[in-house]
Amino acid sequence: MIVRQTSQVEGTRADARGDGWRSLRMLTRADGMGFTITHTTVEAGFRAELQYRNHLEACLCLEGALEIQNLDTGERHVVRTGTVYALDRHDKHTVSALERTTLVCVFAPALVGEETHDESGGYPAAE
Amino acid sequence: MIVRQTSQVEGTRADARGDGWRSLRMLTRADGMGFTITHTTVEAGFRAELQYRNHLEACLCLEGALEIQNLDTGERHVVRTGTVYALDRHDKHTVSALERTTLVCVFAPALVGEETHDESGGYPAAE
Repeated sequence: MIVRQTSQVEGTRADARGDGWRSLRMLTRADGMGFTITHTTVEAGFRAELQYRNHLEACLCLEGALEIQNLDTGERHVVRTGTVYALDRHDKHTVSALERTTLVCVFAPALVGEETHDESGGYPAAE
Repeated sequence: MIVRQTSQVEGTRADARGDGWRSLRMLTRADGMGFTITHTTVEAGFRAELQYRNHLEACLCLEGALEIQNLDTGERHVVRTGTVYALDRHDKHTVSALERTTLVCVFAPALVGEETHDESGGYPAAE
């Protein structure tokens, strides 16, 4: 059994940050679960174009509001508390934070832990 | 892209309930993600002996307090807001809710959606 608190992840390599976002990877590849759970915060005004070619990702919004646009289909959705969105086709998408937003995100396969987005808007394969 | 709100799951087969617990399976096997994300509530006083032989499960506590005991090792942990616990060895365990508690739980492989605990305290394999 693994038991871990956000305070144990803060300040480690699994506390990944960029301009307007922070993602605590609460479980990483080393934990052997096959998936990562993050606690992620994005600040109001954050905007990114993302595509996770090497991972499936789904997020549950805990608080706040995001607009998600699927760049393949053009569809837009506002994600608020209690909304899940899942990129089941490795969808190329934009995330625009309408407010400060907190999310729990799941990545499969698991992240190594320290990933930040590369030039394609995704994370490298763990190999 | 899948976008789904808790209100769309409430009252469906993926709104699983038992005595003192309720689990909204926000993603199920039919979604093809390979994992399930739930939004789960357990009431104060809930207690269950569980073992997921067919799944790996990890939960992030959003609010409240649980005591988790690993029945193989005897170790006990209090899980509060911001704590993840992961049953990386299919650990046989008890969950005792010290308060009303909300969790986001991830199961891999995904749940069909309508599972409730069987006599072993787990969920059947999808097949």
